[in-house]
Amino acid sequence: MHQSYGLPEDIEDGDGLREKCGVFGIYGHPDAAAITALGLHALQHRGQEAAGIVAFDGKRFHSERRMGLVGDNFSRREVIERLPGNSAIGHTRYSTTGETILRNVQPLFAELNAGGFAIAHNGNLTNGLTIRRRLVREGAMMQSTTDTEVMLHLVARSSRNRFIDRFVDALREIEGAYAFVGLTNKKLVGARDPLGIRPLVLGELDGCPILASETCALDIIGAKYIRDIENGEVVIFDEDGVQSHKPFPPQRVRPCIFEYIYFARPDSVVGGRSVYDIRKAFGAQLARESAPDADVIVPVPDSGVPAAIGFAQEANIPYELGIIRNHYVGRTFIEPTQQIRELGVRLKHSANRAVVNGKRIVLLDDSLVRGTTSVKIVRMMRDAGAREVHFRVASPPITHPDYYGIDTPERDKLLAAQHDVEGMRQFIGADSLAFISVDGIYKAMGENGRNPLHPQFTDHCFTGEYPTPLTDREARDSQPRQLSLLAEAS
Amino acid sequence: MHQSYGLPEDIEDGDGLREKCGVFGIYGHPDAAAITALGLHALQHRGQEAAGIVAFDGKRFHSERRMGLVGDNFSRREVIERLPGNSAIGHTRYSTTGETILRNVQPLFAELNAGGFAIAHNGNLTNGLTIRRRLVREGAMMQSTTDTEVMLHLVARSSRNRFIDRFVDALREIEGAYAFVGLTNKKLVGARDPLGIRPLVLGELDGCPILASETCALDIIGAKYIRDIENGEVVIFDEDGVQSHKPFPPQRVRPCIFEYIYFARPDSVVGGRSVYDIRKAFGAQLARESAPDADVIVPVPDSGVPAAIGFAQEANIPYELGIIRNHYVGRTFIEPTQQIRELGVRLKHSANRAVVNGKRIVLLDDSLVRGTTSVKIVRMMRDAGAREVHFRVASPPITHPDYYGIDTPERDKLLAAQHDVEGMRQFIGADSLAFISVDGIYKAMGENGRNPLHPQFTDHCFTGEYPTPLTDREARDSQPRQLSLLAEAS
Amino acid sequence: MHQSYGLPEDIEDGDGLREKCGVFGIYGHPDAAAITALGLHALQHRGQEAAGIVAFDGKRFHSERRMGLVGDNFSRREVIERLPGNSAIGHTRYSTTGETILRNVQPLFAELNAGGFAIAHNGNLTNGLTIRRRLVREGAMMQSTTDTEVMLHLVARSSRNRFIDRFVDALREIEGAYAFVGLTNKKLVGARDPLGIRPLVLGELDGCPILASETCALDIIGAKYIRDIENGEVVIFDEDGVQSHKPFPPQRVRPCIFEYIYFARPDSVVGGRSVYDIRKAFGAQLARESAPDADVIVPVPDSGVPAAIGFAQEANIPYELGIIRNHYVGRTFIEPTQQIRELGVRLKHSANRAVVNGKRIVLLDDSLVRGTTSVKIVRMMRDAGAREVHFRVASPPITHPDYYGIDTPERDKLLAAQHDVEGMRQFIGADSLAFISVDGIYKAMGENGRNPLHPQFTDHCFTGEYPTPLTDREARDSQPRQLSLLAEAS
Amino acid sequence: MHQSYGLPEDIEDGDGLREKCGVFGIYGHPDAAAITALGLHALQHRGQEAAGIVAFDGKRFHSERRMGLVGDNFSRREVIERLPGNSAIGHTRYSTTGETILRNVQPLFAELNAGGFAIAHNGNLTNGLTIRRRLVREGAMMQSTTDTEVMLHLVARSSRNRFIDRFVDALREIEGAYAFVGLTNKKLVGARDPLGIRPLVLGELDGCPILASETCALDIIGAKYIRDIENGEVVIFDEDGVQSHKPFPPQRVRPCIFEYIYFARPDSVVGGRSVYDIRKAFGAQLARESAPDADVIVPVPDSGVPAAIGFAQEANIPYELGIIRNHYVGRTFIEPTQQIRELGVRLKHSANRAVVNGKRIVLLDDSLVRGTTSVKIVRMMRDAGAREVHFRVASPPITHPDYYGIDTPERDKLLAAQHDVEGMRQFIGADSLAFISVDGIYKAMGENGRNPLHPQFTDHCFTGEYPTPLTDREARDSQPRQLSLLAEAS
Repeated sequence: MHQSYGLPEDIEDGDGLREKCGVFGIYGHPDAAAITALGLHALQHRGQEAAGIVAFDGKRFHSERRMGLVGDNFSRREVIERLPGNSAIGHTRYSTTGETILRNVQPLFAELNAGGFAIAHNGNLTNGLTIRRRLVREGAMMQSTTDTEVMLHLVARSSRNRFIDRFVDALREIEGAYAFVGLTNKKLVGARDPLGIRPLVLGELDGCPILASETCALDIIGAKYIRDIENGEVVIFDEDGVQSHKPFPPQRVRPCIFEYIYFARPDSVVGGRSVYDIRKAFGAQLARESAPDADVIVPVPDSGVPAAIGFAQEANIPYELGIIRNHYVGRTFIEPTQQIRELGVRLKHSANRAVVNGKRIVLLDDSLVRGTTSVKIVRMMRDAGAREVHFRVASPPITHPDYYGIDTPERDKLLAAQHDVEGMRQFIGADSLAFISVDGIYKAMGENGRNPLHPQFTDHCFTGEYPTPLTDREARDSQPRQLSLLAEAS
Repeated sequence: MHQSYGLPEDIEDGDGLREKCGVFGIYGHPDAAAITALGLHALQHRGQEAAGIVAFDGKRFHSERRMGLVGDNFSRREVIERLPGNSAIGHTRYSTTGETILRNVQPLFAELNAGGFAIAHNGNLTNGLTIRRRLVREGAMMQSTTDTEVMLHLVARSSRNRFIDRFVDALREIEGAYAFVGLTNKKLVGARDPLGIRPLVLGELDGCPILASETCALDIIGAKYIRDIENGEVVIFDEDGVQSHKPFPPQRVRPCIFEYIYFARPDSVVGGRSVYDIRKAFGAQLARESAPDADVIVPVPDSGVPAAIGFAQEANIPYELGIIRNHYVGRTFIEPTQQIRELGVRLKHSANRAVVNGKRIVLLDDSLVRGTTSVKIVRMMRDAGAREVHFRVASPPITHPDYYGIDTPERDKLLAAQHDVEGMRQFIGADSLAFISVDGIYKAMGENGRNPLHPQFTDHCFTGEYPTPLTDREARDSQPRQLSLLAEAS
Repeated sequence: MHQSYGLPEDIEDGDGLREKCGVFGIYGHPDAAAITALGLHALQHRGQEAAGIVAFDGKRFHSERRMGLVGDNFSRREVIERLPGNSAIGHTRYSTTGETILRNVQPLFAELNAGGFAIAHNGNLTNGLTIRRRLVREGAMMQSTTDTEVMLHLVARSSRNRFIDRFVDALREIEGAYAFVGLTNKKLVGARDPLGIRPLVLGELDGCPILASETCALDIIGAKYIRDIENGEVVIFDEDGVQSHKPFPPQRVRPCIFEYIYFARPDSVVGGRSVYDIRKAFGAQLARESAPDADVIVPVPDSGVPAAIGFAQEANIPYELGIIRNHYVGRTFIEPTQQIRELGVRLKHSANRAVVNGKRIVLLDDSLVRGTTSVKIVRMMRDAGAREVHFRVASPPITHPDYYGIDTPERDKLLAAQHDVEGMRQFIGADSLAFISVDGIYKAMGENGRNPLHPQFTDHCFTGEYPTPLTDREARDSQPRQLSLLAEAS
Repeated sequence: MHQSYGLPEDIEDGDGLREKCGVFGIYGHPDAAAITALGLHALQHRGQEAAGIVAFDGKRFHSERRMGLVGDNFSRREVIERLPGNSAIGHTRYSTTGETILRNVQPLFAELNAGGFAIAHNGNLTNGLTIRRRLVREGAMMQSTTDTEVMLHLVARSSRNRFIDRFVDALREIEGAYAFVGLTNKKLVGARDPLGIRPLVLGELDGCPILASETCALDIIGAKYIRDIENGEVVIFDEDGVQSHKPFPPQRVRPCIFEYIYFARPDSVVGGRSVYDIRKAFGAQLARESAPDADVIVPVPDSGVPAAIGFAQEANIPYELGIIRNHYVGRTFIEPTQQIRELGVRLKHSANRAVVNGKRIVLLDDSLVRGTTSVKIVRMMRDAGAREVHFRVASPPITHPDYYGIDTPERDKLLAAQHDVEGMRQFIGADSLAFISVDGIYKAMGENGRNPLHPQFTDHCFTGEYPTPLTDREARDSQPRQLSLLAEAS
């Protein structure tokens, strides 16, 4: 085990701690770990770099944390047998920057005075680094470089007695987006941030409560969907049943629009809406806004497929597989380095000449971030003989980075932050380019449009309106660099 | 390295040696191994259990053979650097039965008197075991349990001088289906069986010849397609250019129909026909033959997609993703054990309730083999609220096993060999079931129908008409078991 | 990575945290990590289960911790290259009980407010568990189950400003035996417990200071021995040179007698005395006390060799290799389980019949603990034809367990705690059995005998006089078990 | 698995195929594999690079071949359970040149027409490469680069019917030194070359016959020694008992003298003589021939120990451990590269200053090959304060390389082939240097001296008189290099 200690540059840059992740937890089921493994497998699209499960057997906690896919690491019986007990929580992880190292893989665990406590987190704390610095100053020792770990320390240091009070004490100190699942020697706990930016649902299997990032993790095991955990809600399951706490002042829910655009699996129901239907609606709305004359609709696989079907039905143009995906590689957004990302396209996609040759095609994609992939796909279509290539994007231009758990590049690498639509069209080399409008997105979601006073969704990537303070970010910008800090960290 | 020696039962059963594979070779290119790795990656759908590359650097042969995916094993620079040279051949492998062991992974290599010789094989020899027994009786020593190895020994034992003569000597002894690529210290060689059952194409990159199972392996590296290797043709590339030999009496080509139905990648062009277009045509023909009243067409992903698009367009019923596939597992047909195969469906597919609930759906699949997967998919659709489930299959009923390189179960496990269509419908639990007709298949291929005297395709799985003798199979049936042989083998 | 959390039974039993270890540190040398690896290799006899090195490159700390031998893990260039910097500390580890897990392998590291701090420890804290419990109660989070970790937390929580003050604050809270080497981003620090139970020497190479458990670690790299760190001394090396602190009230040094009997390498000089000479003197004294009539002196290899040479010279009986050791296994005392320990003898030793057959032999061993190995060796000698077998032990009967870093069984498994000498003789099956007397040990060390008021050595294993309080042990005996605690720990 | 094909230079040089190895076999015992593993462990000193076991369960052969030590690879129950059956053979391997690759690890196995055949070999064939070339010319395919494999092919190609006749046919073609153990589905076979150069003994455990390179492999499992296999004898064990064949014209036995000097374990009895006693006798004879005035006798550990004890007793000078060996590294002669060999000394040995300082010492070593190690040891003694260093060697000067299974450098790297004794003394830097005389060796063995007409031992390393033709060597010297062959091999 090699480790380098010292805050990596990217943590200082405010980039280092963000994760795009999936969480799962179950209480009271004899096959807790096996079910958690299946649940994480269904959430695999939320993070492919690492996964972990912590189970509690009534006496001891057991933990398995591994780099790689759930199916590769948690499908064998002997691994599950090392995770005995009838309560378990799990996590799949995709870390944005630098190396993912094993000690950062969740769930994290700590021995508190009252007993062990494991926690898994989807989201990102916008004041995590600020709290981390304060804790270290007070003598705390960090075992990871994740923002999640501050929760462990905050709970450990609370002066309250009951676990729930300590947990709420900790929640009151943090800002940002989170869906937590936690496990003590008595309880399963779940919490969603005050705006409900990241999703968390409650299900039930054989009478046992389940928490999961998406409903697809319930479906895989045949569990029943009960309800979404509400924004700002803390739920606790133990022998005595369930308790719900609302420790924050009430706010309107404001979920992240990106769950609908790209994150969630199409068969999930998020916030009561079918993701598949919403994506088809984005495509249909886009067709209404900017359908060109064309012979064929070609989705950029696989994330562009539902929008392309919706576009094709609305525009009454045939839907065809003009791009074939090689299933033996992961999806574009996931590759860890720019270099591999560029190689990726050739390895992942190929043109289906029989569909494309001599045709006017509409390429449908879910989003446009850096644009580097799009450049190659447009060129691949032209190489395969496409007569015209019209590029349509089922989300508005991304002009601002995310700080709530989505891996986005900094502004200067966002294509839409650097160019207007015509500039972007030239960059990707298409004959035309159009995005769905911001209001179009809201309409497709069933709203009349965006409510500028109380936006119904977290949409700062398109609008620049961040829903919470960005404490770490501001600290970084306002303070001189503390070089002495560079030589530390665990 | 553990090895068990002794002919495994399954070899005796005539089941053991068959493989579904992809082959690739390139001559004279400075990046021979890297290009071969990319070519194999494009052929990954033809075999995911193991892969290997042999390169020749002008002095020595270098070999890397690994269990697992091409991308997992051959994507790192250090592996490619261990394969220097400007000629290389490669192989991806899927073995039907028992364990795949490293010594069976191809290309195989032998030191002949005239120099080294490496060979990779897609197909299956129907007299491989018979020849193997004869060779062992004569003092030959086997390093693998593959049928391919007999080619090495036959070439080694030929009394001829020139390599081409020795190679043709060997070809004259074997029967069955094959596409070979071979590499000596001077030549790249390719050969296709007299009926052209298995495919092999010739391409060119930077002036260097390439042999590959499918055109998609040319596309990934931007190579130009030149022509198909003809049935019964042997091609040899060396410093002096290319030579073509036709050592067998001329026969009409009779390619395997399964390449179009299931094997080949949709963006490949096989025998001059776009696989995607043919699959859509299968779907359209099936719609003409048996379209039910329905609300929505749902493909069984991913192999049923093109036929479903063709069916939907012909029948004018909306095409929708009613089943979502989890991309983090391989495809159904590939799983090694029945047990995993059954688990597989839950891990791989999930119902998209938003599409299915309350609807009359048409499920489109490319083939029906054992039917075990179909049972679960139909049930999954009903669980998701489907009002009616109509199952349509874009190939005729499979009544006979294959012996030419396709993994099919023995007759007693083929659903269509045990039941009529109504029996099958009851088995899978659909409201209706229909297959495309055998003549329908030929029509979709552009023929007027099947020519019973000279069938245009190898189609014994549907008709029972095997195109070559089945020597090993007959030997097994006629001879008493030689138990003394069980304790041997390398 | 699998981890089980929850205080293992053996920690509760007071058995779990003890280690027999070697430490090494160097300050200011360009090859710090490579030299540390060589030093640890020379200290390999002090612990073979795991090893670790932490280096500081002026900006970041780098850590490599591995299970297994130093030579297997730290001999390759790429490992050393992952440990850049000109200061480093290292540790070899042998843990007594249960599994050794990676997170327990030292050096341990923590991020303090003032910067990183790594520490390695040889010895055992007799109040480690008591402090650990207090820290957890106050909100500290433990990353390991070692007693060493409490030092990290005590340093982190000190209210003092200067590192040396925080370090001394921490030392004041702990009891027991220790030789520490620590590394901050500015300093190398060493400390020896107030009685000097565990050894620590200061050396110099190319003008750079070195700390090591034994002088053999200086010899391997050609470093010069400067002096022993004194009991109760804290030394600090930084850019400004060296500082020595004596934070404790002065006491007479009282080193562990076991370093001379068994622990230290024979070529080391401990406390100014050659270990080889002392062991020969033990043998000679034993010969004076109890030499039998015999034909040949046979050492139990390898730890009995020097005493046997001394015995043979004093008694004027030929020294012969009557037992041959298989060098491809580790030494008896080291095997992790009783089961392997029993198997071990057959695998490790064999009788040299040519020496033994028909002879009256004296078997010379360094110590007698459980006696299980001795039983087998005596029997092996008789099987090889020995006429008489006289067993001589170059240390007194071990009647009490150690709590200062030596792995000894609990009292009920110590042969000498259960039997008198005649009972032990019967148990091992020898014709006669004798031990060196306690006073004999002191005489061989150059003393007039044991000073009962101020014993010159730590010798509780023979006398029951423990030199410090046994806080954890007493807490265990006096308190009810806290079952709630069982479910905790990191 | 990476493999490079093409005869490596060193095979062409006649250096590549030699091995120093140990063999073991047992017939009819329910724990055949476990006993073989223990036997190989006792033979570990004969080869540490790799080991293998083949077992036969009455129906199938099972093989495990691994790089590394027996104890590391064959001590776990699951490995032994993969080797069921009541007959087994095993091999430990040390290959002289280049990489040891898994396909060269023995036992080798082949499927013959009459059934499987496994073989393990200690020794070296002096016409192995010549036969290999002929076999390849005839169409044979090689799976390894060992000389042993030609035995498999020769047996396979014999036209005789009975196994024993085929085996003897093969023996008649080979020249050189060998001790073979072989296993068929019915028999255990052993064979020793016509001069008995390499040793092979017969033992018995629970009524089951055992073959082993040395008696120490019998002792470890408590087996009874029966007799040595005679030179030129072939023994076969099967259900009907034992048969002994003598297929060669009778010759006087002429065992390799190096087994006594260095190879065999001191507790083994080779050719009826205790190896320990013989080594002591070498030391005593050397003392009679050239004892200097000195204060202390210091063995070069561990191989010089018995000769040093004999020398010390004869010369009446105290025997002391002036050099301490670090047990956590292998022995000098074993290291694979010159570079590591040089580093090795510092890692392996250290001076015991307490013994050496100010003394006139006699260093006793078993042999002097390149002299590079001796240079460092002499220097180490002087650095530790030795007043005089007298070097004594318990074997005569090695002037000629071996071709019978011992790893020796070519002549130009043998110190004694380049220098006279005074030159060697200067090279190693000793105050005096002396070797035992060739006649002294014979006297210590109980002979009156060397019989020049019929030397009683194989001693070409000292005398240049090779006992068999060196066919491969002569072929290499007389023939032009066949470059075409360089590009071949399996």
